[in-house]
Amino acid sequence: METIEIIGLIAATCTTTAFVPQVYKALKEKSTADISFTMYLVLFVGLILWLIYGIQYDSLAIILANAITAILVLIMLILKIKHK
Amino acid sequence: METIEIIGLIAATCTTTAFVPQVYKALKEKSTADISFTMYLVLFVGLILWLIYGIQYDSLAIILANAITAILVLIMLILKIKHK
Repeated sequence: METIEIIGLIAATCTTTAFVPQVYKALKEKSTADISFTMYLVLFVGLILWLIYGIQYDSLAIILANAITAILVLIMLILKIKHK
Repeated sequence: METIEIIGLIAATCTTTAFVPQVYKALKEKSTADISFTMYLVLFVGLILWLIYGIQYDSLAIILANAITAILVLIMLILKIKHK
């Protein structure tokens, strides 16, 4: 595998797993007051569109990365609604 | 332009601009207690790697989207450090 493809894989892993500590923090502290609902809503729409893009191009990397991130972002949206 | 490319452009616009309302909220309310520093740090590393990926492939879309998002994420990191 080329170096640049490895960099791409690490990049995808970072931008996907980044949301795990945020979900963990929100679940543990039961507080999301400082979190922007609009951010997570727009992000969710964007990730679903990336998912469609990935499906169209049969790109497992794009599909996987965006599906996992979309689930984490959806959890944040649900927590934000619950904490209102 | 093909429909799928338009979907990709809207997707990129969403996942980039999503961070604007979060930065605005953090600047306005001067509170980032519920924000995970780890999330933004890992995200920043990922975005810089995507930027390198985009530069390597000469993809203006990947470069632009990730550069803008990286700046917004960096602002969140600075605010998080400032509010400590």
